[in-house]
Amino acid sequence: MPVNYATPAADQLHVVAGVRLGVTEAGIRKANRRDLTVIELAAGSRVAGVFTKNRFCAAPVQVCREHLKQEGIRALVINTGIANAGTGESGMEAARQTCAALSRLMELRATQVLPFSTGVILEPLPVNRLKAGLPAALSTLKADGWHAAAHAIMTTDTVAKAASRRITNANFSATITGMAKGAGMIRPNMATMLGFVATDAAIAQPMLERLVKEAADESFNCITVDGDTSTNDSFILIATGQGNAKFETVTAPGWNEFKQAVIEVARELAQAIVRDGEGATKYIEIAVEGGRSVTECKAVGYAIGHSPLVKTAFFASDPNLGRILAAIGYAWNNDPALADLDDTDVKVWLGSGENEILVSENGGRAASYQEEAGAAMMKSAEIRIRVDLGRGSQAAKVWTCDLSYDYVKINADYRS
Amino acid sequence: MPVNYATPAADQLHVVAGVRLGVTEAGIRKANRRDLTVIELAAGSRVAGVFTKNRFCAAPVQVCREHLKQEGIRALVINTGIANAGTGESGMEAARQTCAALSRLMELRATQVLPFSTGVILEPLPVNRLKAGLPAALSTLKADGWHAAAHAIMTTDTVAKAASRRITNANFSATITGMAKGAGMIRPNMATMLGFVATDAAIAQPMLERLVKEAADESFNCITVDGDTSTNDSFILIATGQGNAKFETVTAPGWNEFKQAVIEVARELAQAIVRDGEGATKYIEIAVEGGRSVTECKAVGYAIGHSPLVKTAFFASDPNLGRILAAIGYAWNNDPALADLDDTDVKVWLGSGENEILVSENGGRAASYQEEAGAAMMKSAEIRIRVDLGRGSQAAKVWTCDLSYDYVKINADYRS
Repeated sequence: MPVNYATPAADQLHVVAGVRLGVTEAGIRKANRRDLTVIELAAGSRVAGVFTKNRFCAAPVQVCREHLKQEGIRALVINTGIANAGTGESGMEAARQTCAALSRLMELRATQVLPFSTGVILEPLPVNRLKAGLPAALSTLKADGWHAAAHAIMTTDTVAKAASRRITNANFSATITGMAKGAGMIRPNMATMLGFVATDAAIAQPMLERLVKEAADESFNCITVDGDTSTNDSFILIATGQGNAKFETVTAPGWNEFKQAVIEVARELAQAIVRDGEGATKYIEIAVEGGRSVTECKAVGYAIGHSPLVKTAFFASDPNLGRILAAIGYAWNNDPALADLDDTDVKVWLGSGENEILVSENGGRAASYQEEAGAAMMKSAEIRIRVDLGRGSQAAKVWTCDLSYDYVKINADYRS
Repeated sequence: MPVNYATPAADQLHVVAGVRLGVTEAGIRKANRRDLTVIELAAGSRVAGVFTKNRFCAAPVQVCREHLKQEGIRALVINTGIANAGTGESGMEAARQTCAALSRLMELRATQVLPFSTGVILEPLPVNRLKAGLPAALSTLKADGWHAAAHAIMTTDTVAKAASRRITNANFSATITGMAKGAGMIRPNMATMLGFVATDAAIAQPMLERLVKEAADESFNCITVDGDTSTNDSFILIATGQGNAKFETVTAPGWNEFKQAVIEVARELAQAIVRDGEGATKYIEIAVEGGRSVTECKAVGYAIGHSPLVKTAFFASDPNLGRILAAIGYAWNNDPALADLDDTDVKVWLGSGENEILVSENGGRAASYQEEAGAAMMKSAEIRIRVDLGRGSQAAKVWTCDLSYDYVKINADYRS
C-alpha cells in the first residue's frame, strides 16, 4: 500500500495533443497482464532523455541513446517483465528488432522509435512475443490512454503513477502529463526506472535537453528506495508542439512558470515512486542544509536514506535517532569532502513547521529533546528530518521510505 | 542463529600470560546481564589500536586515541548497552570518569586505561552504575576469563566470538587469543564494533602499530552486514611480552609466521561477525579480481555486499543474479575510477573450486549457464561469488550475509 498516494483518475490526466497511447497483453513474462505499451508522437515532436549511469546499461537504453542523436522520434515502445539488461549482444539485437518491427507497422524508420524495458535482469527478452503484440497495442492507441499506460508499465509497483498540469495565462495554454513506474532498485542516477512526461508546448531542442536534466535533478535524482541504481533508468521529456505555447528562447514569456510546472510533474511522479517504495509504510523527507556544496548535502541525505538501521527504526516508529547521527558521520564515504565534518557543528531536527523538534546539537542530544515527543513524531506516516551541517549555505533534499518486512518479502519472492 | 559458527569452548581459548579478564552485571541498560568487562594487562605490555572513521566518533574512542599517545596502558574497560556516542561533552566526561574510577581501584594513572562502549547511540552513559560495577568486575579477574568476557561484550550478537592460536617452533612459543562483538551497524572502516586480540609475544611498538592496521585491513575492514559504519569501531592488539617470543625487527625469525597467525585470528573473528550478522541465514564471500587497484575491487565487493536486492535474493535462494550485475555496474558510486568499467570485460561466477559455474560474460548471461545449477548453489548456507573485472591484476575479498525478515525484526525491536 502506498503512503498517502492514489493514482489520479483517468479524467484528471489531461490529454496532450500529439500523443496517443496504446497497451496490450503480450505475455512477455507472465500471462494475463498488460505488459506492452506503445506511445505515438505527432510529426514535429521533440524528445530529450536522461538515462542510467549504471555501467551494465540495458540494451534499450543504449539504443535510445543512439536514436536520440537524430531528431524525428515518432514512437516509444515499453515492455515490462524483462529488463533486457545483462543480455549482451543478443539483447542489443532484440532491442533493434523491436524498433524495426514497430517502425514497419507505423511506416517510420527504425531510428524514429525509442525502446524501453523493465523487469528481470540477465534473462533474454522474448522479442517474438513482443513483436506479435505490437499490432494489438497499436489498435488501442488513443489520446486519453495515459491512465491505462501508467498501469501497463508497472512491475512491483502496487499503484500506477501519473501526474498532470494545465497552465493557462494571457500568452498561452499548455498541458503537461506524465507517468512513471518504479518501486525497487531505486536510486536513480539521471532518472528513475521509467518516466515519461509530455507537453503540447513547442520547445527548442537545446532548452528541452537542459530541462529534462534539470527536472530529473529536482525529482528522480533525489529519491532512493534501496540504494540500487537500476540498469534501465530512463526519463523522457516530449514536446509535441501541437499547442499554442512556443518556447524558442529562455526569455519567452511564461517559460519559468512552464518550467516549474514540468519540474512539479516530475517531482510528483518521483515522490509517488517513494510513496510506493517496495514495502513502504512511511514516507520520509530528508532536508539537508548548511553544506558547502549541494553534493555534500545530497551525500548526507543519501547516507541517512540508505541506512538499513535508520529505515528499520522508521518502520518500527522507534526514535532510535542515534542511527541518524551515525549515518551523517560516515557520509564522507559518499563524498570525501565531508571527511572534515565537525560533529559539534551539526544539528538534527525531526518534524516540520511548528511541530519541528531539535533532536541533536553540539555532538549530543539536545537538552530540550524529549523522547516522548520523538516517539509521537515517528508514528506519522510522513516524517521529515532536517539536518544543518553548519558549514555552508547549500542545501538539498532526498526522499525515501522505510525498510519493512514486506521489502524483504517482495524481493525474496519477486521472480517466483 | 549464526551460519556455521559456534563459540570455541572455554578450554580452546588459550590463556595469554599477562592478561586477566573479569566481568560483572552493572545494569547499564538492562538488568540480569553481564555488561561490564575489565581487562588487566601486565606492566610492560604494548598496545596499538585502530578506530572508526565515523565523524560522530564515540566519546570512548576519542579518549582511547588520547591515551594511546603514551605507552603504559594497563587496563581496558568495556560496557555494553549504551554506546556513549552522540553524547557530546557530557559523554567525554563520562568516559574520563570511567577511566579515573578504574585507575583509582587499580592504582594506575587514568591515562593508562582505555574505555570502550557499545550499544544505543544518543543516550547518556549511566556512569555511576558503571563505576559501581567496577569492584565486582575486578574481583573476577582471571587469566582464563576470555570465554566469559566474549559473552559479556555482546549486544545483538546471538553468539560470542572468540579465536585462539598457539605457535610453537624451534625459536619460540607464542599464544594469540582474541574476542570480538558485532552483528549490526557493521561496515567497519578501520575496525569492527569491538575487537580485542592479545599475545604474549613482545613486539616493538612501531611493528605492533603496523600489524594492527594490516590485520584490520585483512579482516574487519573486509566485512559488511548492513553498510552502516559504527560510531564505536575499535580493534585493539595487545602484546604483553610475557612469553619467550621477541619481535624487535621485521627480520626476527618467525615474524611472518606469527603475523599470519594474528591475521588469521582477526579474520576468524571478523568472519564470525558476518556469520552472526543480524538475521543472517547465509554467509557470502565476494572475491573480486582483475581490478586496477585493491580499492576498486573492494568498491565492487561492497556494492554487491550492500545491495538489499542481492541480499534478499540470497535469503530467498533465488538465483536472480542480474542484481549482481546491476551492483557491479553502479559500483563507481563507491570509486569513481570504475566509471570507465567496460561491462563486456566482466565475468561473474557462483560457487568455488570444481563446483564453480560461470554465470555471466560479454555483458550477458554465459551460454553454459543453467538456471538449475545456479538455483542449487543458492540453496547453500555458504555462497561464493567471484567477479573478474578484466582490467588489471589486483584483487580483494568482502564477506557479508543475506538480508532476512529477522534483520528487520531485530532492528525494528532493538531498543524496545
